[in-house]
Amino acid sequence: MKLSVCLTLTAALGMAEEGKWTPQQVLQLDPLWLKKQGLQLPVSRLWDQKRGTGLLAAAVNIGGCSAGFVSATGLILTNHHCLFGILQEHAKPGRDLITDGFLAKSQEEELPGRTTRVTVPRKFTDVTKEIEATVPAGADDLARNAAIEAKEKALVSECEKTPGARCKVAVFDGGVQYVLIDSFELSDIRLVYAPPRAIGEYGGEIDNWMWPRHTGDFAMARAYKDGKPYKPEFFFPLSKTGVKTGDFVMVLGYPGRTVRSLTSDEMVGQRDYWFKLRSEIYGGWLNLLEQTTKGSPEGAIAVAATQKTLANVSKNADGQLAGLKRGRTIEKQAKAEEAVMTWIGTHPEYAKAAEAKQGLDRLAAEKRKTGTHDFLLGTLVGNPLALKFATRLVRLAAEREKPDMEREADYMEREWTRMRATLERDQKSYYRPADQALFASLVAHAMKLGPEERIEAFDKIFGDGKVDETLEFLYGRTKVLDLNERLKMFQESTEQLKARKDPLLGLAFALEPELKTWQQRARAQDGAVARLRPEWRRAVIAHAGKPVAPDANSTLRVSFAHVKGYTPRDGVIYTPQTTLAGMLEKETGEEPFKLPAKVMAAAARVDASKVPLDFLADADTTGGNSGSPTVNGRGELVGLNFDRVWENVSNDFGYNPDVARNVNVDIRFFLWLLKDVDHADGILKELGVAAQ
Amino acid sequence: MKLSVCLTLTAALGMAEEGKWTPQQVLQLDPLWLKKQGLQLPVSRLWDQKRGTGLLAAAVNIGGCSAGFVSATGLILTNHHCLFGILQEHAKPGRDLITDGFLAKSQEEELPGRTTRVTVPRKFTDVTKEIEATVPAGADDLARNAAIEAKEKALVSECEKTPGARCKVAVFDGGVQYVLIDSFELSDIRLVYAPPRAIGEYGGEIDNWMWPRHTGDFAMARAYKDGKPYKPEFFFPLSKTGVKTGDFVMVLGYPGRTVRSLTSDEMVGQRDYWFKLRSEIYGGWLNLLEQTTKGSPEGAIAVAATQKTLANVSKNADGQLAGLKRGRTIEKQAKAEEAVMTWIGTHPEYAKAAEAKQGLDRLAAEKRKTGTHDFLLGTLVGNPLALKFATRLVRLAAEREKPDMEREADYMEREWTRMRATLERDQKSYYRPADQALFASLVAHAMKLGPEERIEAFDKIFGDGKVDETLEFLYGRTKVLDLNERLKMFQESTEQLKARKDPLLGLAFALEPELKTWQQRARAQDGAVARLRPEWRRAVIAHAGKPVAPDANSTLRVSFAHVKGYTPRDGVIYTPQTTLAGMLEKETGEEPFKLPAKVMAAAARVDASKVPLDFLADADTTGGNSGSPTVNGRGELVGLNFDRVWENVSNDFGYNPDVARNVNVDIRFFLWLLKDVDHADGILKELGVAAQ
Repeated sequence: MKLSVCLTLTAALGMAEEGKWTPQQVLQLDPLWLKKQGLQLPVSRLWDQKRGTGLLAAAVNIGGCSAGFVSATGLILTNHHCLFGILQEHAKPGRDLITDGFLAKSQEEELPGRTTRVTVPRKFTDVTKEIEATVPAGADDLARNAAIEAKEKALVSECEKTPGARCKVAVFDGGVQYVLIDSFELSDIRLVYAPPRAIGEYGGEIDNWMWPRHTGDFAMARAYKDGKPYKPEFFFPLSKTGVKTGDFVMVLGYPGRTVRSLTSDEMVGQRDYWFKLRSEIYGGWLNLLEQTTKGSPEGAIAVAATQKTLANVSKNADGQLAGLKRGRTIEKQAKAEEAVMTWIGTHPEYAKAAEAKQGLDRLAAEKRKTGTHDFLLGTLVGNPLALKFATRLVRLAAEREKPDMEREADYMEREWTRMRATLERDQKSYYRPADQALFASLVAHAMKLGPEERIEAFDKIFGDGKVDETLEFLYGRTKVLDLNERLKMFQESTEQLKARKDPLLGLAFALEPELKTWQQRARAQDGAVARLRPEWRRAVIAHAGKPVAPDANSTLRVSFAHVKGYTPRDGVIYTPQTTLAGMLEKETGEEPFKLPAKVMAAAARVDASKVPLDFLADADTTGGNSGSPTVNGRGELVGLNFDRVWENVSNDFGYNPDVARNVNVDIRFFLWLLKDVDHADGILKELGVAAQ
Repeated sequence: MKLSVCLTLTAALGMAEEGKWTPQQVLQLDPLWLKKQGLQLPVSRLWDQKRGTGLLAAAVNIGGCSAGFVSATGLILTNHHCLFGILQEHAKPGRDLITDGFLAKSQEEELPGRTTRVTVPRKFTDVTKEIEATVPAGADDLARNAAIEAKEKALVSECEKTPGARCKVAVFDGGVQYVLIDSFELSDIRLVYAPPRAIGEYGGEIDNWMWPRHTGDFAMARAYKDGKPYKPEFFFPLSKTGVKTGDFVMVLGYPGRTVRSLTSDEMVGQRDYWFKLRSEIYGGWLNLLEQTTKGSPEGAIAVAATQKTLANVSKNADGQLAGLKRGRTIEKQAKAEEAVMTWIGTHPEYAKAAEAKQGLDRLAAEKRKTGTHDFLLGTLVGNPLALKFATRLVRLAAEREKPDMEREADYMEREWTRMRATLERDQKSYYRPADQALFASLVAHAMKLGPEERIEAFDKIFGDGKVDETLEFLYGRTKVLDLNERLKMFQESTEQLKARKDPLLGLAFALEPELKTWQQRARAQDGAVARLRPEWRRAVIAHAGKPVAPDANSTLRVSFAHVKGYTPRDGVIYTPQTTLAGMLEKETGEEPFKLPAKVMAAAARVDASKVPLDFLADADTTGGNSGSPTVNGRGELVGLNFDRVWENVSNDFGYNPDVARNVNVDIRFFLWLLKDVDHADGILKELGVAAQ
């Protein structure tokens, strides 16, 4: 009887706990509490304060995703979509790796990813004092920002003198803390295994952000160093037993960005000039990509990655908006602020915090005035590709003329190889009809801006209303979209680029002063935030009287959680574990619910309800946690985080224990696929999980 | 913590049990088993074999729906949609009863329903032997059918000699049993209470057939006899405590039609020439009704009931098709048949049953040949209204010329009042653009029929392809659609009707021979079924070795059940109880999720999660069970059945305990509305539930 399931989720298992903790903060948490939660390792195994490393460092960053080392031989597990680029790189007519998946039968067969990099953290140093000391007395906000940036650059430069080092200064909650993170980069990453796309993306956009989920979103790579498999100091051995409801898990990784430290006024700006616009504009772009690639297989392949990103981003935006509304998150933040403000009344030592908050609110009001304008400028440097390429080339040429230390961080010499690789790789994503349609849409949005927000370069060239003709001309004449020409341009000076009289470069040159102005304004605003936010947040933290996890900022974090279902709405309980049986239930023979024959055949040979597939936990995650190793209390890998549930998308603004659930692919499904479907005995042996 | 819900649905609560039991069968069931299920009353209270009545008879039939007496003063509870007609009858500009709902503050204010009738069963007599004896030796199938019909009429006529009696012969499983049911009719039914449509239809078509559900689908009427409130012998007092998960309930009522006694071959015909066509054709009609009433409030009101019926019917059809596929119901029936056939091999006394089954299968094959043709003829006598009216008038005139006992059952004198009332009431549902669009669609389907299935009358008049012009002419010229003229026609002879030279009547006269031929063919087929089915079913029942509930046939039945959730799919559990909180969760301010202000206000004054709204049980129900009283083991009303869940729609073909769930509105929600929203203290007192 199916319904005899009994969800015994009692308080004994520990309450859901908010917090993407930094490694250093883990040491500040109560070790007894952690033990009670289910941590079986000593805390010192997770992080050694002296050495500035520990087991947590087995979680690495792979191109914006998270990943985990899982063997002493450099094997790395992450999400399917995080290694999608390598599949795309090696796919060609007659070798459809994306559809079929890939299994390297030997190290020789592994597929190198030209642009895939893994960053392994090595040392964390608090540099807050040094950064603060660098700001000259009486500096205005722009100067403050420049001084901070200069100091950051200097610290990074010093740090990177060590060969192979890859350093950055991470800012926590707008300047409460600055940490110099010393990492090293592994640049020889080779694909070992990827399931068929139908597994890795099962449910596609329909199931994205949803539960119950049945996606096998994982892939495996191997890191090499000096041509040999890299031997990580720390790795997560695969669990042989998996998880069950109530089990303790840790989710480790590099959550990208959350906004919980914003004031409620700032949150309103985020909602209205970020998520609403993302939902509206990118939602429309998705339709354009579909329309313009209809009937063109090569077009469809080219835009696949962009499509996936846009779908993800716009659905995320919808979820943020819905969640903010339902959870009344901004209203709650406003209430929490009031409490802090009242508390400040009796704590005069924090009087400046109250002023700082008012300053942040004024800043938020100022930003909202040019919200749509800024969003469009921020968009056009990434998409359409025509504008991305052109504006980057123009900016690079200008920055190259400066001494390296005076360049914008993104255009310093250390970034050039990466930038060139991106300019090259992006060619695979270019499909003119689609790109041109996005461009036209961008222009249409720009033309609707109010008088205070005009984009002059656009007004000048598209002001006659003949947008389509102008775009035809631009795309027809420019050489920017030709890969070879573009790589030549990558080397050229401003003078040389201008001499080309390329109309697309011409537009980029016209946009450049506006982009500069916008970015200068943003820098001044950042400078103000660096001045105001720490002041305010220190009061908030003091008021809390316990460790407060800072907003996500793409640095290493860990969340302590439990395997747990939830109640999405009245009358419904979501159980925390799905199985292969559910995957078969969804199978329709049509994408995104169409399974490969070999999977169907293998599934028919087992009791599918006994093959675990995905599971939920109440870990505190966000974008960037894709591919995060999910490990048990003994540090063994039980799964990989790959999503949050719909009701939890807006947790970027605030944590709600009722619905804060992250979605993990179960390592037992990975093992079943390797064993029963792909008979990958060699890899299973290497992973210490010999085929039975 | 919401998730501490523990679904302890153990075997101790009793397994779900298939069966819409007849009152007589209840006495054949093991009383100890019934007690163990949770029945606290002695079985003899439910049904007294000698008197042929009992508590079960407090469940009455109200215009095709079920209903229950709930007071000694004639109060009847049923579904909102079952009394919708009275609301429609009394709604007028400035008095929008449908939207606002209705509450009679005194008996004087109650609203009489002109065509609403309640039928109360009085006595059940097995007449199988008499029916069988009436068939002459060597009769062919048509003669067999005619003999049976004649005998049925005679029995009914004899029975109705008792003043006020309303009798019918009910056929069980195609002739395994014939039962003469003696009922009496209450024709003075007045509306006492109906909630606003937003409550009675909350969730509308979106939530229809779905769980979790938050619909307050109930309304209350009072039966009068001789101008005074009718005093029923049996009624169900309202429960003051309601139900909880695992509680025993009985669902009583008049389930309309199921097809579990069909052979698998016959089921294929049902699927392909009934549900597939319903889904396709009626699904299309829904769009037509929407298009043609756009921007016309009076059009929208007129088609509302038809729309509701079609939406329900076509969604039901979709559910049947999906459920048959998912549940592999027909395949299972085929397997069960094989088992019976094998068993017959060792039980030669049932050899004729095997032949009978082959005969049924041959008949099924024959029916499939004209499946679409027959479906269209069956449709046109009900919709468009133009054809419904015209064909009825023509047939009535013809039948009136015969002696009453030789008339078709539906056209006997006893039906005339009802028929006239229908012709009159239907005028409210007539809106020319909508009706004409349905007509055009019907013709389009007819024009696509194969050469063996042509409808000649249509070919003749629409064969030139100018369908729209012809329809314009028909609708423009006919007087059939004028209520006064139609009521005159209702009195006229064939000659008089012909003399009118009304083009729509002309079409009906042309259709008449085809309808006759089709109906004669159907009668012969019925005669064959009456010969074959009992033979086959007797073997099936003997093979089962225990009572087998017959297919639903609109006679009084009871299903024994428990309050129980289910697992609709991997990773999801539906809990069996919803609350007002869930109703508020769904509220969007837009139909069908827009609550009246007074309900919102009352909801804000209580803990909405403590106000029960709907609940699930595993009762065996089908269409016709709408409004069925759901009572506890003490015979107290705890709710009203109003739907099945989507996964259970195809239970008409077979019962699946995993998903067999019926949807009930909780009597506690009814009481909350009366008490907290409408302050209907008088009624609450009358119901024995004084306002607190």
